[in-house]
Amino acid sequence: MDILLSESIQQIAGKLQSWRRDFHQFAESGWFEFRTATIVADELHRLGYSLKMGKEVIKADARMGVPPEQALQAQEQRAIKQGALTAWLPHFSGGFTGIVATLDTGKPGPTLAFRVDMDALDQNEAQTHRHLPYAEGFSSCNANMMHACGHDGHTAIGLGLAHILKKYESQLTGKIKLIFQPAEEGTRGAKSMVEAGVVDDVDLFIALHIGLGVPQGELVCGSDNFFATTKIDVTYRGVAAHSGAKPEDGKNALLAAAHAVLGLQAIAHHSEGSSRINVGVLRAGIGRNVIPDYALMKVETRGKTNEINNFVYHQALNIIDGAAKMQGVEYEIALMGAAQSSPPSPAWVDFIDQQTRQYIPELSSVVKSRQQPAGSEDATYFMERVKANGGQATYLIFGAELSAGHHNERFDFDENVMTTAVKTLATIALHLPYFDAT
Amino acid sequence: MDILLSESIQQIAGKLQSWRRDFHQFAESGWFEFRTATIVADELHRLGYSLKMGKEVIKADARMGVPPEQALQAQEQRAIKQGALTAWLPHFSGGFTGIVATLDTGKPGPTLAFRVDMDALDQNEAQTHRHLPYAEGFSSCNANMMHACGHDGHTAIGLGLAHILKKYESQLTGKIKLIFQPAEEGTRGAKSMVEAGVVDDVDLFIALHIGLGVPQGELVCGSDNFFATTKIDVTYRGVAAHSGAKPEDGKNALLAAAHAVLGLQAIAHHSEGSSRINVGVLRAGIGRNVIPDYALMKVETRGKTNEINNFVYHQALNIIDGAAKMQGVEYEIALMGAAQSSPPSPAWVDFIDQQTRQYIPELSSVVKSRQQPAGSEDATYFMERVKANGGQATYLIFGAELSAGHHNERFDFDENVMTTAVKTLATIALHLPYFDAT
Amino acid sequence: MDILLSESIQQIAGKLQSWRRDFHQFAESGWFEFRTATIVADELHRLGYSLKMGKEVIKADARMGVPPEQALQAQEQRAIKQGALTAWLPHFSGGFTGIVATLDTGKPGPTLAFRVDMDALDQNEAQTHRHLPYAEGFSSCNANMMHACGHDGHTAIGLGLAHILKKYESQLTGKIKLIFQPAEEGTRGAKSMVEAGVVDDVDLFIALHIGLGVPQGELVCGSDNFFATTKIDVTYRGVAAHSGAKPEDGKNALLAAAHAVLGLQAIAHHSEGSSRINVGVLRAGIGRNVIPDYALMKVETRGKTNEINNFVYHQALNIIDGAAKMQGVEYEIALMGAAQSSPPSPAWVDFIDQQTRQYIPELSSVVKSRQQPAGSEDATYFMERVKANGGQATYLIFGAELSAGHHNERFDFDENVMTTAVKTLATIALHLPYFDAT
Amino acid sequence: MDILLSESIQQIAGKLQSWRRDFHQFAESGWFEFRTATIVADELHRLGYSLKMGKEVIKADARMGVPPEQALQAQEQRAIKQGALTAWLPHFSGGFTGIVATLDTGKPGPTLAFRVDMDALDQNEAQTHRHLPYAEGFSSCNANMMHACGHDGHTAIGLGLAHILKKYESQLTGKIKLIFQPAEEGTRGAKSMVEAGVVDDVDLFIALHIGLGVPQGELVCGSDNFFATTKIDVTYRGVAAHSGAKPEDGKNALLAAAHAVLGLQAIAHHSEGSSRINVGVLRAGIGRNVIPDYALMKVETRGKTNEINNFVYHQALNIIDGAAKMQGVEYEIALMGAAQSSPPSPAWVDFIDQQTRQYIPELSSVVKSRQQPAGSEDATYFMERVKANGGQATYLIFGAELSAGHHNERFDFDENVMTTAVKTLATIALHLPYFDAT
Repeated sequence: MDILLSESIQQIAGKLQSWRRDFHQFAESGWFEFRTATIVADELHRLGYSLKMGKEVIKADARMGVPPEQALQAQEQRAIKQGALTAWLPHFSGGFTGIVATLDTGKPGPTLAFRVDMDALDQNEAQTHRHLPYAEGFSSCNANMMHACGHDGHTAIGLGLAHILKKYESQLTGKIKLIFQPAEEGTRGAKSMVEAGVVDDVDLFIALHIGLGVPQGELVCGSDNFFATTKIDVTYRGVAAHSGAKPEDGKNALLAAAHAVLGLQAIAHHSEGSSRINVGVLRAGIGRNVIPDYALMKVETRGKTNEINNFVYHQALNIIDGAAKMQGVEYEIALMGAAQSSPPSPAWVDFIDQQTRQYIPELSSVVKSRQQPAGSEDATYFMERVKANGGQATYLIFGAELSAGHHNERFDFDENVMTTAVKTLATIALHLPYFDAT
Repeated sequence: MDILLSESIQQIAGKLQSWRRDFHQFAESGWFEFRTATIVADELHRLGYSLKMGKEVIKADARMGVPPEQALQAQEQRAIKQGALTAWLPHFSGGFTGIVATLDTGKPGPTLAFRVDMDALDQNEAQTHRHLPYAEGFSSCNANMMHACGHDGHTAIGLGLAHILKKYESQLTGKIKLIFQPAEEGTRGAKSMVEAGVVDDVDLFIALHIGLGVPQGELVCGSDNFFATTKIDVTYRGVAAHSGAKPEDGKNALLAAAHAVLGLQAIAHHSEGSSRINVGVLRAGIGRNVIPDYALMKVETRGKTNEINNFVYHQALNIIDGAAKMQGVEYEIALMGAAQSSPPSPAWVDFIDQQTRQYIPELSSVVKSRQQPAGSEDATYFMERVKANGGQATYLIFGAELSAGHHNERFDFDENVMTTAVKTLATIALHLPYFDAT
Repeated sequence: MDILLSESIQQIAGKLQSWRRDFHQFAESGWFEFRTATIVADELHRLGYSLKMGKEVIKADARMGVPPEQALQAQEQRAIKQGALTAWLPHFSGGFTGIVATLDTGKPGPTLAFRVDMDALDQNEAQTHRHLPYAEGFSSCNANMMHACGHDGHTAIGLGLAHILKKYESQLTGKIKLIFQPAEEGTRGAKSMVEAGVVDDVDLFIALHIGLGVPQGELVCGSDNFFATTKIDVTYRGVAAHSGAKPEDGKNALLAAAHAVLGLQAIAHHSEGSSRINVGVLRAGIGRNVIPDYALMKVETRGKTNEINNFVYHQALNIIDGAAKMQGVEYEIALMGAAQSSPPSPAWVDFIDQQTRQYIPELSSVVKSRQQPAGSEDATYFMERVKANGGQATYLIFGAELSAGHHNERFDFDENVMTTAVKTLATIALHLPYFDAT
Repeated sequence: MDILLSESIQQIAGKLQSWRRDFHQFAESGWFEFRTATIVADELHRLGYSLKMGKEVIKADARMGVPPEQALQAQEQRAIKQGALTAWLPHFSGGFTGIVATLDTGKPGPTLAFRVDMDALDQNEAQTHRHLPYAEGFSSCNANMMHACGHDGHTAIGLGLAHILKKYESQLTGKIKLIFQPAEEGTRGAKSMVEAGVVDDVDLFIALHIGLGVPQGELVCGSDNFFATTKIDVTYRGVAAHSGAKPEDGKNALLAAAHAVLGLQAIAHHSEGSSRINVGVLRAGIGRNVIPDYALMKVETRGKTNEINNFVYHQALNIIDGAAKMQGVEYEIALMGAAQSSPPSPAWVDFIDQQTRQYIPELSSVVKSRQQPAGSEDATYFMERVKANGGQATYLIFGAELSAGHHNERFDFDENVMTTAVKTLATIALHLPYFDAT
């Protein structure tokens, strides 16, 4: 089987590359993945998958960090001009750019879900011939949108996997769900899919990422480095006044924000593990001689565990509230993103470790976990839900050579990782009968 | 009459000096004036004045900044050892060290009140032969108590005035009240006497001070430089925790206080006049490796007008409250002192200006007002009450040569100012029939 | 003469209105007054004044708050499209939009200078029929530029005055200089004209403003309410780092700015007079999960006197510097504007007071000074220079009914004030022989 | 041998208890261990150990947090009254209260050192019959000094070990050094002994502690939970001024401290491990109406590694410096204590683990390490020096039942731990020939 599988995958290697490069060129940021989603839906539909899309798989009020309506409409128009398949577009309109494709083998067996993400980052791509996507003509044509994290590859892997699984359907058991998630950047999208119930029937779950500093050829079977995180926008609203003529009439939103910044950065460390706080952006005031009547802060908290993140977050809420009271200003807090910490399920990690060591010779190294810098990932929402329902979940990292770090304007990856990933994931699915989940 | 008056006053010059030096030597801080008060009461009684004392003239719960019961008892014992007249002591026990002496002439006429203060400062006196009180043997024998502001002289002036007025009783009209107030330092005592009603029947009111940077020989008839002020002690109470082992268990009172300090000092300026804020003292924490569970701040606000002080004070309350909420700590605010701003009554100032220019040749200069550094005085409480009842009030400053500034450990004044002051005040009383109050 | 003068002025009332409305419609912000300046220059030239312009009257490196070169060029192009007289444009190119017109009578006498300002504010104008300039079709056609402070009227008054003075040249003595200044808003332009020496030969100086809360028909002959001020932009530059992965690598520019904001607002009050401080704008950081590597603060200090402003400004420099050192970040300070306090010359104010009471019946009220809210004006630079050279200077306010306060998007003024102003100023010039400057 | 050893130890169990209770009753804080040191020296001398003491084993200028000379003298007098052996006292006078006792077997072999600490804490002991030391009459008779951390037991264990080792001298090899250290609390003493060279010849090193939350009967062979730490006192010195009259003359030390507090608590987290910062104490200002001219902060930094602590400490230095510059105040930093992180040597830990499992049946549990709350210990200085010279070092914890947590006023421990500890330590020394250090 493995030889056949390898051959099958080699046959779609060109497709993987062309999908990836197409998504890369028409990079779409979170909740704007209109073109990408229509292409994904169309492909999956043509393969024979049963699809759920848009509001069926995304709970509207559980979405976080959704851009304003006006921007959504403009981007939808942009997508149409760039070849979005308009037949599918109504499903995704308004920022509901998620898809769940199901393959029901009709045979008994667990439900296995794979999750990939589709969104680009809000940044411009390098315009230099030393940057391969630019040199080869597939760098992003959309201003302030760039696939600098590899989600273009993830989406292509998802489609490639769909091809292979369909091809080998007769050898599969149970059900397979392929989840294409929007807005992972900023950890904004997963919660809304989880709350729509898309993994409520899932027994085994795999999310994946390429790169992340793992060497080319290495697979991490159970990455456990994701911090729980909460991302909020805080807006203080005071009262403007002429700073020379009537200073006593002002309610100074910037003073509130300055206290909040210092207070937030000074939240106590936690003895049970690492935590983080950042006020990454502050915008306040309208003129030099006017007491600032507004201040916007973009804040995020993180914690090694959900409990630690909650500790930091609730301290932050007190600080934000108290700083407002100090200056007599009002405030609003908007939840812009969130993710959890979620340790992988040991037995599931062991199984993947064994299978991949044995059957994927392309992998020069297979490890269960790896010390990595603190980051966050909203796939953890899926993982927590699956585990809460008695299932098992893990997060794979496929090592890949990178031209520059993630989120760098010159980020690019060795596209060979895509075939390795497809083969690995398909193999896990095909070998599932050998897994004893109890 | 003026020659006779001058002679009468010269006859008591020695008394003035000995009283002043006795009070100086046995300096007693606010609410501790046990010995002073018994001596004053005894003298006034022997002169034939009708006396009200202690709780009759001081409303208990309107007192501010009263020391703890234990300290009051200890100081009362100290006073006994230093010659307090024990027959009078029960009136003053517990920190009710005020006296109002009344001389009712039986003739029609307004009620005129003079107010002097009796308390020393919480500081040590210089122990050097270059400091005259030390050289001549009457420097303070009480640790951390020193007459460094001249209230010893004020008390002596009050007694001297009592002598002269009694002697010239037949030439007086209406009623005269002599108010001996405790605890002016920190502006703690006046409010309690006002709320006991001691000036509710007063038509004309004079408070006085010596020195204050006014040149020897000059009289300021209507000093208008007193800022309204509020003095509070703020105590934050958090939760201690080992800063290494369990930092997350602490509620950091010092962090709250640090925010409060910065917030308080940053209260907006007021376009209608000067204001001040000061956190003069901060004490927080018990050990280097313990998250501070308490912080005490000594705060004062000031404003050119009562409205401005109120603005600053209410901003301060918000800041103190918000800083507590930022850190999740509790707090208490204790009112420790307060004074008002109170413009002198113009007609009353004019009258004093005219009379003193004409009848007190000892004064080389008489002015209505004078630009002076911002300070506070709780005589303003008496002034505001008298004016609120339709009366007239003013504040006199008798210029005096000083050996060092007020509140300096080497403060001393030229004692000649006392006879000038007694003559001036007596002259005003004797000439009162010429004043048209309408 | 006065009747003739009144008639002469009535003859140009229409011109005043049409100039003012033209300038209003083509409002140009500071250093962008390209169209305005060419029209002013052309008019003055045609009247026969001797002109100095551009770099002759503006010292390049003494200009403050000059926009970037690119913006200057774009605005010059905009001005051309809007009818700037291209023959004059080269003088003003690059943001040298000042003019000094001289009328030398050839007769002995002092040099008298009048200064008007020409710039608009950086704001949009109300688009509503309740706003007269919009209803009558002369509201600003330039985005983010609006004459909301009346400088359009000042420029028109300057041109009207030029007409009248030329007409009555034979009755004048000495020299008259008319100064048309750019960039008064933000107090950016005057210093550069003073440093170019334009008032070095001036004996008597008048600056003027309309409105400012003074009632229609009232003239303030010696306004003394201008605070000295310094306006700076502070940029902190730190080092960005991923706030989750490598927080220790960052140098947090926002933290520095937050300390600076709190420190600046907490600068001590000054016992000798009012002061102000404001951080009106803060912009920091590039992304929620990135430690902020820059922060821009727009700051201004003010003081009742130059000394007090200097005190505040130098405290501010220490605070800005110390806050940088706390966080290990670099900083730059750009001087964006400055003005001084400058008491009017009493004799000159008296003269204007007498002359206008006697000869300008249109004025229902003439006062020497008036309590007003604290503001700043860079005409003070001219005043200080003239006085430093032994001359006399003052600042006039012509009361005017306003539709809304200065800097409001619906600001407009009763245009009748323009004829009153021209008559008043011309009368002062014509009566100058009666002024005894000694 | 083991049976004999057990018997020998049982024979000194009474001595262990009486030493411990004597030291407990006459508790002496860091650098004040005058009485304790003389008793220890006398005992060791009588046993036949070769002694070095005082300045021979303590480098004067490497001591940290030494109390003022006056306090040292007073405590030395106190010690004399409480039975300090005056013959030995001169060695320790001035706060040089350390002893190193050497037993040279004359046989080849490594040099093995044991280190115990002798100091009490600055706190009062509970006065209640529910507190055994009080009930049995050996609670501390010294105000503000209490053995609330078990160092009284450590000192007794050191003496007991000295007895046993001397008794079994013939079975030992190499050299044995017993180090009795002062001032471990506040991590003040070890550095001065290390810099005096007392472990420069040591091949194998053991420090120990009892309790620390480890269950009675358990031995931790290689505790690795000590954070590197630096403890400093920071004093800001500004200029006092009357806050009402001359606020501009002040240089506000409290404002500097408030900025420093907020800045310090906001030092960035480190991605490589935990860190801590605490400002445990702040004392500032002398009076409510005086701008504070001094502020004292007691600060400590901690880090999981020396590098992390250094990072925090150097950030702290910048913050302290910058905060001073913000307010124009001076400052001094006094180093009050320091400790390092120091991972135990694995082979040495393994050996102890094996030996104790086999030979100390009193131990119900032997573990190599144990997750524990973050604390600091200056034994790490010895460990780092020994390892730097190629030796091996570890830190043992002997579990003990406690009546209350360390540093609690009711702290007490089950004294049986002392015999277990002596037996364990002696066994390690006796079995040393079986250890292969390579």
